[in-house]
Amino acid sequence: MIGADIGGGSARVAAVGPDGVIARKIKVASNPEQGYKPLVANVRAAMDKIMAAQKAPPLAMCVACAGAVDFSRNMIASSPNFPGWRDVPLAEDLGRGRPFAVSLENDANAAAYGEGWIGAATGWEDFAMLTLGTGVGGGIVLGGAVYHGFNGMAGEIGHLPFSAADILCGCGRRGCLETTASASGVARRAVETLATKGGQALRRVSRGQSGRVDAKMVAELARKGDAECRRIMRETGMELGQALGALTLSMGLTRFVIGGGMAGAFDLLKAPMRKGALARAYTLDARSLKISVAKLGDDAGLLGAARVALDKV
Amino acid sequence: MIGADIGGGSARVAAVGPDGVIARKIKVASNPEQGYKPLVANVRAAMDKIMAAQKAPPLAMCVACAGAVDFSRNMIASSPNFPGWRDVPLAEDLGRGRPFAVSLENDANAAAYGEGWIGAATGWEDFAMLTLGTGVGGGIVLGGAVYHGFNGMAGEIGHLPFSAADILCGCGRRGCLETTASASGVARRAVETLATKGGQALRRVSRGQSGRVDAKMVAELARKGDAECRRIMRETGMELGQALGALTLSMGLTRFVIGGGMAGAFDLLKAPMRKGALARAYTLDARSLKISVAKLGDDAGLLGAARVALDKV
Repeated sequence: MIGADIGGGSARVAAVGPDGVIARKIKVASNPEQGYKPLVANVRAAMDKIMAAQKAPPLAMCVACAGAVDFSRNMIASSPNFPGWRDVPLAEDLGRGRPFAVSLENDANAAAYGEGWIGAATGWEDFAMLTLGTGVGGGIVLGGAVYHGFNGMAGEIGHLPFSAADILCGCGRRGCLETTASASGVARRAVETLATKGGQALRRVSRGQSGRVDAKMVAELARKGDAECRRIMRETGMELGQALGALTLSMGLTRFVIGGGMAGAFDLLKAPMRKGALARAYTLDARSLKISVAKLGDDAGLLGAARVALDKV
Repeated sequence: MIGADIGGGSARVAAVGPDGVIARKIKVASNPEQGYKPLVANVRAAMDKIMAAQKAPPLAMCVACAGAVDFSRNMIASSPNFPGWRDVPLAEDLGRGRPFAVSLENDANAAAYGEGWIGAATGWEDFAMLTLGTGVGGGIVLGGAVYHGFNGMAGEIGHLPFSAADILCGCGRRGCLETTASASGVARRAVETLATKGGQALRRVSRGQSGRVDAKMVAELARKGDAECRRIMRETGMELGQALGALTLSMGLTRFVIGGGMAGAFDLLKAPMRKGALARAYTLDARSLKISVAKLGDDAGLLGAARVALDKV
């Protein structure tokens, strides 16, 4: 199988065995400003290199990509990472002249599926994964399969209205979870405190330059005991937890995986997430609630895509 | 098939054909204070009357009931209508000595399933139904089947945190949708306005007695153009719509049925519900969004239960 994950900065392509072991992985640039055709050419070149190194030709390929996938037409309808894309036949363009079919999957869905296959959610048939990065990606697995929903766009957890702040989101709405409970949201909260008394430690470490403040800095200061940074991480965890509780109430889910860059702060987020979820959902109890940190790192989407390909052969 | 729906005031039992036609229906009292055994005896007597009137014995029976159904043990774990019930073997007790198996279903789920079978959602494979009464019941149908969720308690839409008011809910949380967007919530909002200038019409019609104010009165005054009652219905619809939008974001649902006593005000609620849903979910568009009023009235749960029974034979 070939799995690929096309992000806004780089695209990764890998040959993956039926056991989930990556035989070879190639990373190529995927600059959104570079245009669609050069990106397709780069990924096709990577595919060819990978195929040449394999004993047998791959049987199938799946590409994970952020955005709305039109499964009925096997196209990317739109992608936040590539604003120019509208109904892009990415699968067809990558598969042209190659001896296997190419399918598509949303990247957050693929990451969840990967974690369910050989990651933090092994053995879980029903769970949601939140990918905490610039935004909050969401992927839902039900009965062991990626859940797309009637409209093909289920799992948009980052846009559930669980932010207490009234910040305009990229989706055009206000109060979306990802405006505050993402890595960029944490950085934004921290920047807001720079001018306050509580922001002393942050001001020192960032030398007062808001551009230097990021979620990792906040997490590190929180671990060192800084009260303001601890508060930011706690509030972030509580907001995420409320979203998890809402998923319990609506979908009956009790198991969750936290991935993405900010999963590095899982030690700080876990307790307030649990508290937030239990505070929200009367149908949830502490024993049923499981929140695990992702295991596959940046390869989750790639591996999930490979698993989608494996399912099709 | 026999379908039954046990509510907090009355229980209904009916013989239902495979076409959904009710051959005979009996209503018996189900006073929560009366105790469990007399209720079982009343329902069994109704079952016997119905069986005696049928040419062939029924093949299966399902009972719809508010509360948490433990499907693995075929018991009612707990029920808001019958506070004394804990792990009640209702199915076993009703089926004892009868020539068919008895299964259980949550009443809001059964209502949704009934509407999907021969009601407002015929032909819809994926939708949610909100039953607006004292609370807000929720039932979800996915792929044409009742969706129970991993914990057996999916569809608790009335407890999603979409009420702007900070009112304590029966579930022990604050801000649950059903504290304001139910028939009792509408009455509560109206009572709050009785002492204000805007509450003049309500004060007149209720003779200033808050106990006389109910959702029906508010709806009637809203239809006559009373600004305050129109505002209450509009805000109620918007809150319900936000919950629908959240179901679109998380579950990818775009089709909804509104039932229960307050569905009588669907003419007033529909437009703000649509507005609220579209305002919440960027993945939703006006063309995909369908909100229909329930068709089966009080029989929805009964008929859905009969359909569950039919599925089992």
